[in-house]
Amino acid sequence: MADYGVLYLIPCPISEGNITSLPSDTLKVLYNTSYFVVERAKTARRFIKSAGHPQPISNLMIYEITDDKAANETFLNQLFRGNNIGVISEAGCPGVADPGAEMVAWAHRHGIKVVPLIGPSSILLALMASGLSGQSFVFNGYLSNKKPELVQQLRQLESKASKLNQTQIWMETPYRNGFMIETCIQALQADTQLVIACDISNEEENIQSKPVKDWKQIKTDYYHKKPCIYLLG
Amino acid sequence: MADYGVLYLIPCPISEGNITSLPSDTLKVLYNTSYFVVERAKTARRFIKSAGHPQPISNLMIYEITDDKAANETFLNQLFRGNNIGVISEAGCPGVADPGAEMVAWAHRHGIKVVPLIGPSSILLALMASGLSGQSFVFNGYLSNKKPELVQQLRQLESKASKLNQTQIWMETPYRNGFMIETCIQALQADTQLVIACDISNEEENIQSKPVKDWKQIKTDYYHKKPCIYLLG
Repeated sequence: MADYGVLYLIPCPISEGNITSLPSDTLKVLYNTSYFVVERAKTARRFIKSAGHPQPISNLMIYEITDDKAANETFLNQLFRGNNIGVISEAGCPGVADPGAEMVAWAHRHGIKVVPLIGPSSILLALMASGLSGQSFVFNGYLSNKKPELVQQLRQLESKASKLNQTQIWMETPYRNGFMIETCIQALQADTQLVIACDISNEEENIQSKPVKDWKQIKTDYYHKKPCIYLLG
Repeated sequence: MADYGVLYLIPCPISEGNITSLPSDTLKVLYNTSYFVVERAKTARRFIKSAGHPQPISNLMIYEITDDKAANETFLNQLFRGNNIGVISEAGCPGVADPGAEMVAWAHRHGIKVVPLIGPSSILLALMASGLSGQSFVFNGYLSNKKPELVQQLRQLESKASKLNQTQIWMETPYRNGFMIETCIQALQADTQLVIACDISNEEENIQSKPVKDWKQIKTDYYHKKPCIYLLG
């Protein structure tokens, strides 16, 4: 294992170009890495350039993950040759809910050292700022986009939050925030605490925590097409 | 609200003194803040000093959270006077599983703006490096320290992980790692993937992902008294 390269998980800013949101430790590893496995080559190149990588971008090996498992693994073979590889996802921390996780699993199976670096995670930032319990929490990904199922799911989350004192977190595609907020107001109990963390780690960041009954007063237009994380507890 | 101060959630390094693990955006807010609500005054002072705060530490108002709710809230009144307050916990991100969450909930109730800053979270770093699913995951805090109950809890987590494709995360106090690993080996199925993320964000960091059957070969002494995060999926 000593002669193998290391698989580094390199976070990138949530808000493009915002390099000062990354620790110098993370940037140092980025600058010393020449091989990258990325979710999308175009944005990864832009990030690496804006971060001030010392090498010309054309000298770097930037491989976009494909559906072809064998091709992905061929690139990862660079690790056996002693080259470090950095994994970069679209925004935030790679390896969580993105194709990077498969690369990490492969590395573990082959005795490659995996090192996660520090950077922004909209899920974690939303949880910190929610004021809800962090002793136990669940990230549920995306819920249903069909109303009757969504109502049922929201009520299940509400019931779990209350029984287990377990904060429930989920996401929604930005253009459906109106639908999500209205359905929350209809499905959830008046006193349930609902947090919407909007435009996290961005100049427009806005995090509101209110009982469901108070969300009725809010104009949902504000949230249209903005990335939001939802939490209840 | 415009004239109120902001409640900033300021992460600190997991590994003491490791200031380069924080983004310059986070340090900038720290340097511009004079009022702090902290989990433990002694370590917070050490962190603020080692981070290079421009003011002498004796000029800063550092308030340690107590069990006296009214006293805590009296300090938070500084926010109404237009002073920003930084919340600092023992290690990593404040507001998650620590007394800072109560301060955040109070701020939301009083129309105070809450801003979470970027920094290290051992839970998130462990998840990134696990290679397990991040589409859905649960942080379960601490499990039981009694063997029969722990066996039952581990089997429940295993069953949920498999039914819901939901990564299960938990912690253990460092001196009980041997007990936890041995109980995992006894309670879980041979092919269940168990990840132990040890000494996260530290020079000795070691993250291993193996099926339970392969953990039998591992010497548990290595993990004695080291902080570990456990994941299965």
